[in-house]
Amino acid sequence: MTSNNAFYAQSGGVTAVINASACGVIQTCRKYSDRIGTLYAGHNGIIGALTEDLIDTSLESDEAIAALRHTPGGAFGSCRYKLKDIETHRSQYERLIEVFKAHDIRYFFYNGGGDSADTCLKISRLSEHMGYPLQAIHVAKTVDNDLPITDNSPGFGSVAKYIATSTREAALDIASMCSTSTKVFILEAMGRHAGWIAAAGALASETNDGPPHMILLPEVPFDRQRVMAHIDAAVKKHGYCVVVVSEGARYEDGTFLADAGNTDAFGHRQLGGVAPTLAGMVKQDLGYKYHWAVADYLQRAARHLASAVDVEQAYAVGQRAVECALEGKNAVMPAIQRDSEDPYSWSIIDAPLERVANQEKFMPAEYIREDGFGINDAGRRYLRPLIQGEDFPPFENGLPKVAKLRLERITKKLPEYHL
Amino acid sequence: MTSNNAFYAQSGGVTAVINASACGVIQTCRKYSDRIGTLYAGHNGIIGALTEDLIDTSLESDEAIAALRHTPGGAFGSCRYKLKDIETHRSQYERLIEVFKAHDIRYFFYNGGGDSADTCLKISRLSEHMGYPLQAIHVAKTVDNDLPITDNSPGFGSVAKYIATSTREAALDIASMCSTSTKVFILEAMGRHAGWIAAAGALASETNDGPPHMILLPEVPFDRQRVMAHIDAAVKKHGYCVVVVSEGARYEDGTFLADAGNTDAFGHRQLGGVAPTLAGMVKQDLGYKYHWAVADYLQRAARHLASAVDVEQAYAVGQRAVECALEGKNAVMPAIQRDSEDPYSWSIIDAPLERVANQEKFMPAEYIREDGFGINDAGRRYLRPLIQGEDFPPFENGLPKVAKLRLERITKKLPEYHL
Repeated sequence: MTSNNAFYAQSGGVTAVINASACGVIQTCRKYSDRIGTLYAGHNGIIGALTEDLIDTSLESDEAIAALRHTPGGAFGSCRYKLKDIETHRSQYERLIEVFKAHDIRYFFYNGGGDSADTCLKISRLSEHMGYPLQAIHVAKTVDNDLPITDNSPGFGSVAKYIATSTREAALDIASMCSTSTKVFILEAMGRHAGWIAAAGALASETNDGPPHMILLPEVPFDRQRVMAHIDAAVKKHGYCVVVVSEGARYEDGTFLADAGNTDAFGHRQLGGVAPTLAGMVKQDLGYKYHWAVADYLQRAARHLASAVDVEQAYAVGQRAVECALEGKNAVMPAIQRDSEDPYSWSIIDAPLERVANQEKFMPAEYIREDGFGINDAGRRYLRPLIQGEDFPPFENGLPKVAKLRLERITKKLPEYHL
Repeated sequence: MTSNNAFYAQSGGVTAVINASACGVIQTCRKYSDRIGTLYAGHNGIIGALTEDLIDTSLESDEAIAALRHTPGGAFGSCRYKLKDIETHRSQYERLIEVFKAHDIRYFFYNGGGDSADTCLKISRLSEHMGYPLQAIHVAKTVDNDLPITDNSPGFGSVAKYIATSTREAALDIASMCSTSTKVFILEAMGRHAGWIAAAGALASETNDGPPHMILLPEVPFDRQRVMAHIDAAVKKHGYCVVVVSEGARYEDGTFLADAGNTDAFGHRQLGGVAPTLAGMVKQDLGYKYHWAVADYLQRAARHLASAVDVEQAYAVGQRAVECALEGKNAVMPAIQRDSEDPYSWSIIDAPLERVANQEKFMPAEYIREDGFGINDAGRRYLRPLIQGEDFPPFENGLPKVAKLRLERITKKLPEYHL
């Protein structure tokens, strides 16, 4: 077995293009096969490393790896699992080192968002704290667009394109129904704390006059009376009203409009159901006939409608991560830099991971329009380039083709480990 | 003004391809401009005829009319408005004749589903009952696929493709999340009484083993205990469970799982919220973490993912409607006939409208698999051809381009009319 093997894993909520990043990592590792031996993929993120549940990617055909570029979801399995601090849970890190040693793993690529960047940062310090030579590179991914430093997060452009397209399409539907039927249509978009995804609904029209006629962002406290008055005015003016609401919409005191009461492994509350909650208010306060949609996973899995810019960037950060490793870097995250806005051009810079981990980038106030119910031209200028270009997957029998991987596991060398 | 003008209008819930039918009607009228004068489009369906709110389609450019083929929603406005019987509301029919006379309208094309076919049938009898020479042709349209005689309804193939694609994509998402997070994903599909749309979710996989692992149809009474046991078994076997549930899912006694309590103009109950209702049961009975999506208008407006077969058929029934009129036919509906299944081929037959109006075609029992939780191979063979082929709209600035119509109204000749 060659030394200097590599590990790659996916973490957190997946996106339409996280596998495009996987494709970038794997193809680049294959390109540098003289310097990187085998690339092992962790099954279900860091859990795969802890439990020595490793997929030998060298057994996958070039064709299957290429197909990852147009396959949504996380092909190797993702996880919501946060490593504890090295001081409080040293044995977990010792286990990781055992596994890495057993398989000669010296490169660690972790594909995730802000929480996962924290995991990656902790791993990057193994070298310093525990004397094991390892380079950890974070591969940015999140539909939420809330990673700092990077101009935008791979995964966001595609969900933005999906929400903008769906808003435009559904608006044409309700516009034709409103004379005798539905007056208010509410689309719920993801985005726990940052309103980026809902904001992208604004792109459905060229102007702020809509549709959508209103976007409810977590950044702007929800005021029922003001919101209902705005909806009513839109119905009176246009005959109908299209609202895009972020799942994170909340009252002044921070209470979410709809709170399912569950929390995930990171301690975040599981949200959902803002659209029907708001629809109930419309019925009660205004009496209008409504329809509502909750796109949920559909929006972040919609690879069939991915942004070509997003696919390219997702691939590029995967590719750059491997190059960083080969350049001897550690604890960095390839980040997107906006070099020019119109025409849009971008390049990649290497961001220090300690400035990325556990940070959330909210919608800046200067992108939010004065009444708080959407974005202004500055916001549009920021968002517009990210949804450009189509990258339709190949279709077969009427459906998008997806990668078929063998996902063969390595033979374990170590005793079993319980999380 | 030329005599023998025509009227076209859209009725009922719109689809991703109803404008493709409009395109077929308008382009064919233009082709036979020696025999058909002006085609007027009713603004908001039959209401446009009653209120003399008529759009002069001759003022639209060829380019704009061609763009209707890839524009979702109802470009001329739709309505949910049912004409009463001629015996009980004769004055309404007299008004229609006044309007038709005032604008020399002798051809009536009505684009809708089963309820609208009833309106069209009533209009077709004006000649017989009230001595006004008019030919009424129905142009089939409904996402619900519940029109009789026709092998399938234009509009259905595209929503079927959307649900199948979304199910495949979301299933890849949950498959990658299930080790530490979501175990059950529920997608709610439209279909008030017939389970056709939910059934199309089955096409997401080549086999009945899923995903989706379960489809809940209105045709099969909901039995909470059996459903929960099936979900539990799927989670234990696959690690996760994907459920597609029809909005019309109901208990043995006919009560809908989720009943918003509203009724539309046709007296149908407005449904919605089956997915969260079912998710609540999953939480309560099984304790699994869930996600749910309600596609609502998104599914029937998703022209970006239309089935090429569906677009062609929608156009063809519009085209054939005009030909029927020119052949002197009355009270017919061009219907799709399946000539061969594999390879799929189809042709158009002219169905008598009295056999279409107010009928609903349910999923035949022989398409439903034995346990009731999905469809069998016969069902797959029926559905598969309908989602074939892609017909992506042109995109501009990252979004689907849509038709921009002038929608210029004619000068009214008659006194105002109140509905």
